[in-house]
Amino acid sequence: MTCELCEGDGGELIWRNEECRVVCVTEPGYPGYCRVIWNAHVAEMTDLADGERERLMRVVFAVEAGLRALLRPEKINLASLGNLVPHLHWHVIPRFPGDPHFPSPIWGARQREPGPMLSDHGIVKKALAQRLGRL
Amino acid sequence: MTCELCEGDGGELIWRNEECRVVCVTEPGYPGYCRVIWNAHVAEMTDLADGERERLMRVVFAVEAGLRALLRPEKINLASLGNLVPHLHWHVIPRFPGDPHFPSPIWGARQREPGPMLSDHGIVKKALAQRLGRL
Repeated sequence: MTCELCEGDGGELIWRNEECRVVCVTEPGYPGYCRVIWNAHVAEMTDLADGERERLMRVVFAVEAGLRALLRPEKINLASLGNLVPHLHWHVIPRFPGDPHFPSPIWGARQREPGPMLSDHGIVKKALAQRLGRL
Repeated sequence: MTCELCEGDGGELIWRNEECRVVCVTEPGYPGYCRVIWNAHVAEMTDLADGERERLMRVVFAVEAGLRALLRPEKINLASLGNLVPHLHWHVIPRFPGDPHFPSPIWGARQREPGPMLSDHGIVKKALAQRLGRL
């Protein structure tokens, strides 16, 4: 059994430490969509020790705070699912009223086509990496 | 503007303290589906103080641990979305290979009809309430 989150970063790497990493996900209509991925192959939050869990959530919430400050979304969606890839990872998704699924979760049917995206999120990624560097 | 999570419990109440509550959700094909709801009307995790956030997550993970011990699901899904009801609440969803959407998230198209559910989850609810009482 191979695991794509063991074999690769799982997206464009923004920041990492010994325990986890933050990657940027390219998904049309979803600027700022990030994943926070635990480096070791663990399935559930309650498979982690208390301190590991707290540190992982601190990174998730730092990403949330950064994306809110940088993009001013209508809402943040957080999710740890992993039914297909049972390697602990958190989706951190800034949501906007005009995005393809709003106000539904992004995993349902599209309500509308994605609008044009900024071609480069370099500024967001750099600012997020700086904030994470201060953790 | 009225908020359904300010006006009511939001499900069958299993446990509560001054800050948050745990309710059981009746959703065909999803035994053990719980929500952990912050009592005050707050939209985002990063609107909470650090200590509040930690205590809320401690409850979420206690529900996860309880459901894993009681139901032995294939996977736990955790999500804080709230695009329609921006009042902080966590979905804690035990997932099983035969459930209506497995392995997709529960918010997409059904893959199959829900199977028969136990009519009474009294034992699960009681055991969960006992575990939460020890927090």
